[in-house]
Amino acid sequence: MPLTTRLTQLLGIEHPILLAPMGNVAGGELAGAVSAAGGLGLIGGGYGDRDWLERQFHAAGNRRVGCGFITWSMARQPDLLDVALDHRPAAMMLSFGDPTPFAEKIKRTGALLICQVQTPADARIAASAGADVIVAQGTEAGGHGADRATLPLIPAVADALTKAGSQAVLVAAGGIADGRGLAAALCLGADGVLVGTRFYAARESLGHPNAVERIVRSTGDETRRTSVFDILRGYEWPAPFTGRAIVNGLLEEWHGREADLMRAGEAERARYAAAADRGDFDQAVIFAGEGMDLIADAPPAGEIVARMVQEAEAALDRGAAFRR
Amino acid sequence: MPLTTRLTQLLGIEHPILLAPMGNVAGGELAGAVSAAGGLGLIGGGYGDRDWLERQFHAAGNRRVGCGFITWSMARQPDLLDVALDHRPAAMMLSFGDPTPFAEKIKRTGALLICQVQTPADARIAASAGADVIVAQGTEAGGHGADRATLPLIPAVADALTKAGSQAVLVAAGGIADGRGLAAALCLGADGVLVGTRFYAARESLGHPNAVERIVRSTGDETRRTSVFDILRGYEWPAPFTGRAIVNGLLEEWHGREADLMRAGEAERARYAAAADRGDFDQAVIFAGEGMDLIADAPPAGEIVARMVQEAEAALDRGAAFRR
Repeated sequence: MPLTTRLTQLLGIEHPILLAPMGNVAGGELAGAVSAAGGLGLIGGGYGDRDWLERQFHAAGNRRVGCGFITWSMARQPDLLDVALDHRPAAMMLSFGDPTPFAEKIKRTGALLICQVQTPADARIAASAGADVIVAQGTEAGGHGADRATLPLIPAVADALTKAGSQAVLVAAGGIADGRGLAAALCLGADGVLVGTRFYAARESLGHPNAVERIVRSTGDETRRTSVFDILRGYEWPAPFTGRAIVNGLLEEWHGREADLMRAGEAERARYAAAADRGDFDQAVIFAGEGMDLIADAPPAGEIVARMVQEAEAALDRGAAFRR
Repeated sequence: MPLTTRLTQLLGIEHPILLAPMGNVAGGELAGAVSAAGGLGLIGGGYGDRDWLERQFHAAGNRRVGCGFITWSMARQPDLLDVALDHRPAAMMLSFGDPTPFAEKIKRTGALLICQVQTPADARIAASAGADVIVAQGTEAGGHGADRATLPLIPAVADALTKAGSQAVLVAAGGIADGRGLAAALCLGADGVLVGTRFYAARESLGHPNAVERIVRSTGDETRRTSVFDILRGYEWPAPFTGRAIVNGLLEEWHGREADLMRAGEAERARYAAAADRGDFDQAVIFAGEGMDLIADAPPAGEIVARMVQEAEAALDRGAAFRR
């Protein structure tokens, strides 16, 4: 049975589940599979590679998908936004930076504007910018994010939006890897969820098989927010954003010594790039969230969506039963 | 209408709401008020002060209450457990340390054993020790705790308990300050919630009026996990525990310079103690959680319980409505 919410109605989808636009992981095939299953897939625009982006939109085929960018990075090469918009995405998602300069252009094409935020204050900015959907992302999320945890953040953002008179649809992200999380998000005041790590371990994921295998066998105790991998990859992320990743040997080596790492320079970066190329995940980063306890396999994305909906229905029924 | 769960049935209470045993804040009057309203109040045994504890049990009057201890601290003066047990508490809660050495003594008196944990692994230890109730506490909680966030932690602990064949009742803590959080906790697989910060700002709280006022006007963005205040107070907390507190001038001054602070020694500690004595909360600690966005007043505890139940019912109804 579909879970009908303001999100499903706005996006014209069946289930209130969005694929997080994970760079190098959420390609066209994965996004297309999530959309085909009744959610909405978002291609991960990442730091921007025009050819890769073109290929992924083509891989999505005739499925209706969206695309997400790292706002501060895309702002340095704004033609990437045009590349994405040329493919008539259902929605464009902007995260990590002020969406205001890009909002009008996106909405003019008919794409819905999804803005991801980490605080109630940034939710107010996104609402002012004209966001149709606001994703409030908790710190337990994999990949980049900030410090507020999902459970208290969602009602705080819901209240902030109400107070601001915003009609933006609220979506929860961070730590949601099964239907219990989806049900909880709905009770907290969201109208859907954005899911990353769970889909990293989907059959259609572009993630390296070694990384997927590591996600399947790791737990939520094995992650940490860090800037170590950003330094090693040469990305200058602004505060307060860090990336939640699985703790590996390299992270243990440099954690707390970020200033030294910055000074270590090119040699370390080259060593890192080589390790990443050969899929050595004791050195290379695997961005993943605290929901990993709930991930024990790598099925097709469509099966993940179906399970999540079924589990959410059961969880909502569990909650409702306490009322009797 | 009551929300009947395994927790309410086990404890013989009306609503699945426990008062967190906040040291120096959750006294007998507050604990008694929560119990009178249909939840269960737990007196905050803290670092242990026999006379204070006796006074608080007397202040609870004939209300049925429980008591909570910091396990590693109580282990250094185990006669405090006898003091508490002499008052025939409904339940004893142990947090931050192995409960095993104390479990049998507690259960022999007829008190239920509540164990607070921060990871699935510690939940398994608590279950083995014979915990009747296991509180899984997320990092967004005020006061001492660890690093896992509530939303993904609860289903992970629920699964760990199921897998271990444990019948312990699961309670969620961390960031729960209104009924939306309670409803979410129930959907995630818990049978109730443990609530701290929201009750810190209750009329019956022993918290300093300046601290209560600060909680009411602060938001969840204004907290940080830290060991600065523990160092200044001379408490040797074991890893991985830190305390979530409102960021104030003193915390800004010493954050990241904890080793220097340890060396600064007695003079800094004396200065801190004097500031705490005069209620100067730009220096003294206010332990509080990320749920502060949801706290805008300091009503009687009974009103907090009633609101929370009503909001939870509305939130569960909201969730169930999506099924139609």
